Amino acid sequence: MTSKKKQIKLGVFLAGTGHHVASWRHPDAPSDASMNLDYFKELAKTAERGKLDMLFLADSLSIDSKSHPNVLTRFEPFTLLSALAQVTSKIGLTATASTTYSEPFHIARQFASLDHLSNGRAGWNVVTSSIESTALNFSGEKHLEHHLRYQRAEEFVEIVKGLWDSWEEDAFIRNKETGEFFDKEKMHELNHKGEYFSVRGPLNVSRTPQGQPVIIQAGSSGDGKALAAKTAEVIFTAQNHLESAQEFYQSIKEQAAEFGRDPEKIAIMPGIFPIIADTEEAAQAKYKELQDLIIPSVGLQILQNYLGGIDLSAYPLDGPLPKLDAEASNAVKSRFKLVQEMAERDNMTIRELYKYVAGSRGHHIFVGTPEQLADKMQEWVDTKACDGFNIMPPLLPEGIEVFVDQVVPILQERGVFRKEYEGTTLREHFGLEKPVNRYAK
Amino acid sequence: MTSKKKQIKLGVFLAGTGHHVASWRHPDAPSDASMNLDYFKELAKTAERGKLDMLFLADSLSIDSKSHPNVLTRFEPFTLLSALAQVTSKIGLTATASTTYSEPFHIARQFASLDHLSNGRAGWNVVTSSIESTALNFSGEKHLEHHLRYQRAEEFVEIVKGLWDSWEEDAFIRNKETGEFFDKEKMHELNHKGEYFSVRGPLNVSRTPQGQPVIIQAGSSGDGKALAAKTAEVIFTAQNHLESAQEFYQSIKEQAAEFGRDPEKIAIMPGIFPIIADTEEAAQAKYKELQDLIIPSVGLQILQNYLGGIDLSAYPLDGPLPKLDAEASNAVKSRFKLVQEMAERDNMTIRELYKYVAGSRGHHIFVGTPEQLADKMQEWVDTKACDGFNIMPPLLPEGIEVFVDQVVPILQERGVFRKEYEGTTLREHFGLEKPVNRYAK
Repeated sequence: MTSKKKQIKLGVFLAGTGHHVASWRHPDAPSDASMNLDYFKELAKTAERGKLDMLFLADSLSIDSKSHPNVLTRFEPFTLLSALAQVTSKIGLTATASTTYSEPFHIARQFASLDHLSNGRAGWNVVTSSIESTALNFSGEKHLEHHLRYQRAEEFVEIVKGLWDSWEEDAFIRNKETGEFFDKEKMHELNHKGEYFSVRGPLNVSRTPQGQPVIIQAGSSGDGKALAAKTAEVIFTAQNHLESAQEFYQSIKEQAAEFGRDPEKIAIMPGIFPIIADTEEAAQAKYKELQDLIIPSVGLQILQNYLGGIDLSAYPLDGPLPKLDAEASNAVKSRFKLVQEMAERDNMTIRELYKYVAGSRGHHIFVGTPEQLADKMQEWVDTKACDGFNIMPPLLPEGIEVFVDQVVPILQERGVFRKEYEGTTLREHFGLEKPVNRYAK
Repeated sequence: MTSKKKQIKLGVFLAGTGHHVASWRHPDAPSDASMNLDYFKELAKTAERGKLDMLFLADSLSIDSKSHPNVLTRFEPFTLLSALAQVTSKIGLTATASTTYSEPFHIARQFASLDHLSNGRAGWNVVTSSIESTALNFSGEKHLEHHLRYQRAEEFVEIVKGLWDSWEEDAFIRNKETGEFFDKEKMHELNHKGEYFSVRGPLNVSRTPQGQPVIIQAGSSGDGKALAAKTAEVIFTAQNHLESAQEFYQSIKEQAAEFGRDPEKIAIMPGIFPIIADTEEAAQAKYKELQDLIIPSVGLQILQNYLGGIDLSAYPLDGPLPKLDAEASNAVKSRFKLVQEMAERDNMTIRELYKYVAGSRGHHIFVGTPEQLADKMQEWVDTKACDGFNIMPPLLPEGIEVFVDQVVPILQERGVFRKEYEGTTLREHFGLEKPVNRYAK
């Protein structure tokens, strides 16, 4: 990356028919999207055509009758990413996996296998699973409390990274004549004993093309930010305003430095929910078309879930959001604060709030032209509000097509986004070195 | 299947460079086989060219410096099968997954997702994990005792099958106009509460193309046979002699009938380890070539592992196998008895035994011509010793190529094996109905 201008990092967050709550009702959306492999393959190829750094799949492990259509039924991420790896060759393949409801040995193995199968394109979004009912699917009486989930997560990530070092780069000799298949000195047991886990290892997957898959983290609460600053190489976040984004950017980079890490080796990528059209009016009309598809009961439910299951049914839809107690909810603390601040600052009614929240689930909505979006992206990156964006197309496949066809060319023209992939691995796309194996002499 | 002759069921058990312990040292074997995706894709396509019912991947979750090269490092099965699903369209895609070291929700989800991604070709080989050190990778002090592993396994399988029924076939309406995405009456919580697990559900994957992936089971101990007779639709087994195979066949089918199941809907498929050449002499030479590649320390180690970690180092290699106490070992009971009987009956030295066991790990070795193999297969199927075979090629890729090119045509000619796939799902290949959803009215 020889150009002086700072290069923008771009990921696309793929989710069924798109991120707008009513996207599945739109005529252009294939309503079986979340279970349609050919459809996902086209989305992945479009994103790779646009030279994006990575595609991302979120995940959760508990549904009920109020869950969104994109979530009620969907492919399990590792099987889907492995299938997408067969029709792409450059774009990063990243997904969420829970540290609360899985085992380090399984997660280390699945991402290591994916990294091999994709020639070095795997990335892990570390989550602690915020949906409380998940415990009911895993023989757990109660969902682990917020702080403890992050304590367990930190130990979990350390074990996974340790297992990824089980084999040194040159451990396998494969000498048929001498019969020496591998060098025993270069196979390492981890022998981890900790608060939540004891894991001997070694992992039964050799060192991966990236050395270690890329660690992504999306927590924004105190615990979440600390874990991100300590471990994450890419950080997702929900930031609606330039100033708050700059504050978040600065505080995370400082925290990382305090942990002895190079802040330049951490890419902060807020979500953005772009509704793009040739003119602002056309974009507003596109947005209104989607907003008008929201069924009130669904919209209100999403807002209530978003605020940790708080019941708003007693309040008039066209009245203000009442004063709420953040501590009373075990859900994501950062989101709670974000919604309350926004409601007060912009004087929003519950209907407007649920349309806003339900429409984009609290992420940064952009409505405008390709030029305006490119301007905003450059502004945020150049003023240290972020290092790039995780695109959350409101409607798919249209949302990724218009971005790749109309916004990427502008960014390329301005010299702030690659015209060709410089490398083949996800680490190379982000300018991240291959981690040295802790056991290598 | 209109022909009167009984059709032979055929699966291929893919394992790195092949099942012979020294296969990786053979000049024709790619020594990085277990981590070579293109190589696995070719094997899968060859097997599908031969119209085989299914391919199978074994799995384990603990290695040490004595583990076999095919096992030291390998792809995680779900990611590999999902990649193979993209280059095949008919052959069944089956793999081992442990009921002792995973969670029902994860296993149900991974196989359901694979069944969708492969258009109905998924099968699950239910194992309880016999390698005791596996516990050390999963924070377990001690490996669950044999009988308890099978108790847990039975509950585990029931939960997975219950989760696979979470959604009725026609649960998803996807009516964009009315906004009705699904019929709440056709989404079902399992609410399982049992000895080992409590799992609410529902599963977040819709009903799969097969209704339920196919259940496979390979246990041969008392507990293993009971679980197989109760739940399995395909049964793997190690049978070296026609008579013992017929006894096993009869006892399992009787047991299944006692559990109210139709014995005809259970396919018993013993492993066979075929060394094939144009003449018997050439086949014997091929076998000797592989046997001579066995490194003594490796061979002895495999025999000792096979007998549950018993130490034979004090006994001369060219002397007999000493009298051993089966109860002293926590390994697979059935194997123990099998090896001891064989050693006594055929008066084998420890070297001959380790060559035999190490060479094919106690499975049924066949050395001869394609015609002879076809004769044997027909004899076993026609005399109710089995319903087909799980081919364990000693050397790959050669072993599956010679089988598909030279043995399958003979079986097809004799009218005992399909010339074309009759259906597209694994159930259709086995003539198994699609299970009715327990909640369907």
